[in-house]
Amino acid sequence: MGRKIEYHFQVRWGETDAAGIVFYPSFYAWMDEATHHYFSEIGYPTTKMFEDSKMGIPLCEAKCVFKAPLFFGDQVTIVTTIEDIGNKVFVINHTFMKEGQTVAEGYEIRAWANLNPKLKAVPIPDKLRTAIESVSTTA
Amino acid sequence: MGRKIEYHFQVRWGETDAAGIVFYPSFYAWMDEATHHYFSEIGYPTTKMFEDSKMGIPLCEAKCVFKAPLFFGDQVTIVTTIEDIGNKVFVINHTFMKEGQTVAEGYEIRAWANLNPKLKAVPIPDKLRTAIESVSTTA
Amino acid sequence: MGRKIEYHFQVRWGETDAAGIVFYPSFYAWMDEATHHYFSEIGYPTTKMFEDSKMGIPLCEAKCVFKAPLFFGDQVTIVTTIEDIGNKVFVINHTFMKEGQTVAEGYEIRAWANLNPKLKAVPIPDKLRTAIESVSTTA
Amino acid sequence: MGRKIEYHFQVRWGETDAAGIVFYPSFYAWMDEATHHYFSEIGYPTTKMFEDSKMGIPLCEAKCVFKAPLFFGDQVTIVTTIEDIGNKVFVINHTFMKEGQTVAEGYEIRAWANLNPKLKAVPIPDKLRTAIESVSTTA
Repeated sequence: MGRKIEYHFQVRWGETDAAGIVFYPSFYAWMDEATHHYFSEIGYPTTKMFEDSKMGIPLCEAKCVFKAPLFFGDQVTIVTTIEDIGNKVFVINHTFMKEGQTVAEGYEIRAWANLNPKLKAVPIPDKLRTAIESVSTTA
Repeated sequence: MGRKIEYHFQVRWGETDAAGIVFYPSFYAWMDEATHHYFSEIGYPTTKMFEDSKMGIPLCEAKCVFKAPLFFGDQVTIVTTIEDIGNKVFVINHTFMKEGQTVAEGYEIRAWANLNPKLKAVPIPDKLRTAIESVSTTA
Repeated sequence: MGRKIEYHFQVRWGETDAAGIVFYPSFYAWMDEATHHYFSEIGYPTTKMFEDSKMGIPLCEAKCVFKAPLFFGDQVTIVTTIEDIGNKVFVINHTFMKEGQTVAEGYEIRAWANLNPKLKAVPIPDKLRTAIESVSTTA
Repeated sequence: MGRKIEYHFQVRWGETDAAGIVFYPSFYAWMDEATHHYFSEIGYPTTKMFEDSKMGIPLCEAKCVFKAPLFFGDQVTIVTTIEDIGNKVFVINHTFMKEGQTVAEGYEIRAWANLNPKLKAVPIPDKLRTAIESVSTTA
């Protein structure tokens, strides 16, 4: 139901390991980047949320399934959607595409939370919920 | 059934983010470190496996559930076990402990695989299987 | 004398630290990215050099002077030039710009080298030297 | 004149790159770790400095000269000293040793500074200066 947002990146030299393929924790750093990109695109840049009100979207859980390795220089697109929004948490899905093929699929479960002075999840504001839900699919 | 191996580390300055807590992809880097440590402890250092025969243990899937944030300087222990060994893949569990409390729980599903010249999973050798299974619990 | 090549990037969430500013080793990762970008732009993509002939451009020395902090979300441009080419080594300069101001200045000294099976510097081929030298300034 | 403090670490899998050697920005992350370790050892843990008074030791400049590559699994010692203390800044030297040989030598120039709400260097307190200077060499 939610909007699909695409995030594009190229695999950097330092993201590979001694086996010549991407060091797997990088996939989670990329999911994190794609999530920040998503919120920026729907009008909620995370940097502004944090500066204005110390609100953020910390992680509850993250999983990724790896289907094919990535190599230095690969051009990758992450297709990001939010399809499940609870009271305080939401699931954000990330599909990694390379040359039209899915190379990995992951999700993050994140909370809407006060980050300072103490990490505490709070209900997702209606305005943000609407921003996510009402945007129609672009693909 | 498998042996528990402990891996100890301290949270580094660069592993935190602008919200002052650990940037979550670091948990996966630590699971990776704990896995390399586990194999080294049971007599299969991954660097030697790779140098000798281009064998390695690439990722199929990884998930982590975050229960409490970590901060710079925290002393953390990962308790690692392998409880499920298939023909070519195995599940390796990691529990993150800080001051006696579980702060995160994750697992990796990894394959036993040729890494060069082409990534290809192959059956886990009996000797390695035995090294994992026969070692009794130390805790 | 060499050509100026620009590399653009945005500061990612995970590149900041608990003080809210960029963790300084990231500047070196960015210089590395800018260098790979430079060689790609002049027709020598480093991934191809490595795959074709196991040649690469390992580091001899790197220095960076920090003039102003960078924050999450900052849009940054690195202006990269090579002004000094020796027999086997060269100096590649990187100037970090944000909103028209210099935030950091660094350089890397790199060798032209065989990376496998043993790291060994060799003379820079004339063709590569010409590719660097003959391109006129674009700025 | 200052005390030598040793910091020990092992090269992690993810710190290598596709050429099989350590990705060079990691040397700066290690210098940063060694610096935090140094201050902790002389009674000034940086985490406490930041929490108590928002003070920190941000970077002005950092340089490293690389003499030999490091590989996954290498056991490395950094020997850290402070030999030059100015009014607001100091130079902290780091020598990377592997099996008794120097593999890299670097330094960081850091300031004693307020980190929040605005980065601003201030004079180094006498007490800290004394903590650095008065400790005799241990090696």
